[in-house]
Amino acid sequence: MEFKAKEIAEILGGTVEGNPEAVINTFARIESGKPGAICFFANPKYEHYVYECKATAIIVNNSFEPSQPVPATMIRVENAYAAVAALLEYVTAKKRSYRRHRGCRCRIRWSARIGRKVYVGDFAYIGKRAIVGDYTKIYEQVYIGDDVKIGSHCIIYPGVKIYPGMVIGDRVILHANAVIGADGFGFAPLEDGTWKKIEHTGNVIIEDDVEIGACSCVDKSQMGSTIVRKGCKIDNQCAVAHNVEVGANTVMAAQTGIAGSTKIGEHCIMGGQVGVGGHITLADNTTLAGQAGVIGNVKESGKILMGTPAIPYKEYFRSYAMFKKAGK
Amino acid sequence: MEFKAKEIAEILGGTVEGNPEAVINTFARIESGKPGAICFFANPKYEHYVYECKATAIIVNNSFEPSQPVPATMIRVENAYAAVAALLEYVTAKKRSYRRHRGCRCRIRWSARIGRKVYVGDFAYIGKRAIVGDYTKIYEQVYIGDDVKIGSHCIIYPGVKIYPGMVIGDRVILHANAVIGADGFGFAPLEDGTWKKIEHTGNVIIEDDVEIGACSCVDKSQMGSTIVRKGCKIDNQCAVAHNVEVGANTVMAAQTGIAGSTKIGEHCIMGGQVGVGGHITLADNTTLAGQAGVIGNVKESGKILMGTPAIPYKEYFRSYAMFKKAGK
Amino acid sequence: MEFKAKEIAEILGGTVEGNPEAVINTFARIESGKPGAICFFANPKYEHYVYECKATAIIVNNSFEPSQPVPATMIRVENAYAAVAALLEYVTAKKRSYRRHRGCRCRIRWSARIGRKVYVGDFAYIGKRAIVGDYTKIYEQVYIGDDVKIGSHCIIYPGVKIYPGMVIGDRVILHANAVIGADGFGFAPLEDGTWKKIEHTGNVIIEDDVEIGACSCVDKSQMGSTIVRKGCKIDNQCAVAHNVEVGANTVMAAQTGIAGSTKIGEHCIMGGQVGVGGHITLADNTTLAGQAGVIGNVKESGKILMGTPAIPYKEYFRSYAMFKKAGK
Repeated sequence: MEFKAKEIAEILGGTVEGNPEAVINTFARIESGKPGAICFFANPKYEHYVYECKATAIIVNNSFEPSQPVPATMIRVENAYAAVAALLEYVTAKKRSYRRHRGCRCRIRWSARIGRKVYVGDFAYIGKRAIVGDYTKIYEQVYIGDDVKIGSHCIIYPGVKIYPGMVIGDRVILHANAVIGADGFGFAPLEDGTWKKIEHTGNVIIEDDVEIGACSCVDKSQMGSTIVRKGCKIDNQCAVAHNVEVGANTVMAAQTGIAGSTKIGEHCIMGGQVGVGGHITLADNTTLAGQAGVIGNVKESGKILMGTPAIPYKEYFRSYAMFKKAGK
Repeated sequence: MEFKAKEIAEILGGTVEGNPEAVINTFARIESGKPGAICFFANPKYEHYVYECKATAIIVNNSFEPSQPVPATMIRVENAYAAVAALLEYVTAKKRSYRRHRGCRCRIRWSARIGRKVYVGDFAYIGKRAIVGDYTKIYEQVYIGDDVKIGSHCIIYPGVKIYPGMVIGDRVILHANAVIGADGFGFAPLEDGTWKKIEHTGNVIIEDDVEIGACSCVDKSQMGSTIVRKGCKIDNQCAVAHNVEVGANTVMAAQTGIAGSTKIGEHCIMGGQVGVGGHITLADNTTLAGQAGVIGNVKESGKILMGTPAIPYKEYFRSYAMFKKAGK
Repeated sequence: MEFKAKEIAEILGGTVEGNPEAVINTFARIESGKPGAICFFANPKYEHYVYECKATAIIVNNSFEPSQPVPATMIRVENAYAAVAALLEYVTAKKRSYRRHRGCRCRIRWSARIGRKVYVGDFAYIGKRAIVGDYTKIYEQVYIGDDVKIGSHCIIYPGVKIYPGMVIGDRVILHANAVIGADGFGFAPLEDGTWKKIEHTGNVIIEDDVEIGACSCVDKSQMGSTIVRKGCKIDNQCAVAHNVEVGANTVMAAQTGIAGSTKIGEHCIMGGQVGVGGHITLADNTTLAGQAGVIGNVKESGKILMGTPAIPYKEYFRSYAMFKKAGK
């Protein structure tokens, strides 16, 4: 372990009084503090140690008012007792996870917080302040941007890329080379015929128990969140655009695309290569046959649709029978 | 080189008699064995050396019955002569391939077997017990899972991900970011409206001379194998689902998808964005126009189909002419 | 810095006279040359220094004719003054960019030229002689092949793969796992039913201000170039085939595919999942509704088309109304 005083203050939500760059590499009791160590002081009867302690830093309560100069850098927190426990837990968790990766050629940024029993594969990258829950497996060559939150018991297969700030729930499975959080496809036309990029500042929320297939993409929203609700199952090479909300337990077969700002109901079932236009609302329990194209709202629950534009499948089949007959 | 006795036994298909953890780091003749060395004994006239040899291990025939205690660990094999040749070849091949990668930042697990003249790019990962044939080129950032078998003269472009246990033939080309072996898309509906994942324990077999495009996905089967037969050519962003079999020399243009358990014949030609439903059989020499959607078996060979559901293209065009006329 | 004489000659377009392997690690003035240094000689009044200079190498004009033996290796260039300026600039730029990556686990080949203020992420690979312009950001796990040229102010997101020899303009954005330059899908049928690969020796040119979505693919041409013109915006999972030219400011929504050798006009707008056949010309300002399939030339500008084969959308809707009516 090696931390600067300011880093510890950051972890504990405290403030530094003294040298914020002071380097700490071990813990010590306040009566046996030495350079490089951090001690803590909470019990008033040990106050005299504070003024003679050789430790680099001391964690003290915000309420502590020294009666003499304190040689060590002080880190002030609400509750020094609790802070030490938290710091120990943090350092242990850090150690535990790193110990698993000895020799691993991944890169985990310092401020990322990796849970217990987390596997991180070679050449994976975990950005600043990212959080990865316990028992999650991050395979080789995965990219996890800054500030991403990933729950516990997830499986992130090789080559998955998660842009900064995205949020992934528990027990989520992302298959190889899926991309979560690319910019939504939004451009404003300019008078000269060119397009001005509309910046996307939102994120993607993937709720618990979602599975997303290989090479599928879920784009981040312009503002707010693109949301894939609990229990959705999305096959390979699907595209979920910005600001879309996919209702709980909806399943989507391969190569299906949902355009921007559309709201898909719960328990919907989509065959392969389905397209749903933008700014559409799809009722719960809608079933879309393969290659269907939806260009307007579907308000009634439980419909089975087919064709482009999509119509009730029985009608589509009857119409298509007539269509075929005309060509014989 | 450094091997344990049990590792050498594993390589040679032999058994250890003595200390399986004994470490061997060189070869020696039986008359000049020294600690750390492995010798072999086959010619009966050298038998006395076996009892005084200071080598760490000796390879002997299964049939050898020592008349005195043997100080060295014995590795028993069918044919000690042949075994030594095989071991030398193994070690040389290992050395040769590693020598090519000096400074390479890839990760090759110890138990992987890399053929001769194999290129492995930076940040590529080759899992445990994976086998890569001679002259195969594995580009940067490729992931090859445990127990994958790849033939010779293959080209695996950057970012390809191959899940554990998949089998790739000779002269196969996989373009960048293709994914071989993701879980098939199979879930069982539960009463509460959620979906229970059906585990996929099968694999994918890509036969010889297949080429697969960038970002294409071939999913592994639930049981048995998803098979892409000899000489198939698959373009970018195609999806071949679990348990599918694609017949020899079939070609598939970009963004085509084949749903689960379908059996595609030989010499079929598919335009772009074709969809073929699940559990379908497609006869040999079927041609599918771009965006065609096949929802039933095609039993007769040599058909050219178009539309969704796909019908003979001449009929489709005649029907479509009527369709257009109606809207004028 | 550390260069061989021959490498400096390569950078300056000059020739070596003496030891091409001589190693240079610093600059010096000709009057204070020392082993390891490179000096330059242009002003005739310093000629006597050339014969006594202890530097490892001296840059001289092509026209310089020594009157005595020169102990140092000479690098002859057209203009020694200008060459030194160029060399300093090169070395400074190199230093500057490398300084930014201290501790970075990327691989940048020696002969790549990385501009100023370039970010290169961990596990990214930049090939031989590749050029990356100023202020371009290359994220983690990107692959940039040999001889690729990338302009300035580009953003190349994680996992993008760019095959050797591709050309990318300024201010281009490539989203995660996009693939630029995979082989075009071209095979010649052989008499035995197999397919012979047609090698693709061309490249891809992505002009300025283009944005390409996640998992999209632009294939390289057989000969010449596949071109995506200025200001085009291409969404996720699109496929642009070999030898295609996409006109300036055309936008393409997700999962659209353009087949080989097709020429798309300027300012075209394509909905999602559109397919355009091969060897087609599409006029400027063509709009294609989602899932439209174009199988013939569109000669008149400004059309809005729908259906497969695509027809004017108003006619399509009228026809489809009749189609639906028939099935009721």
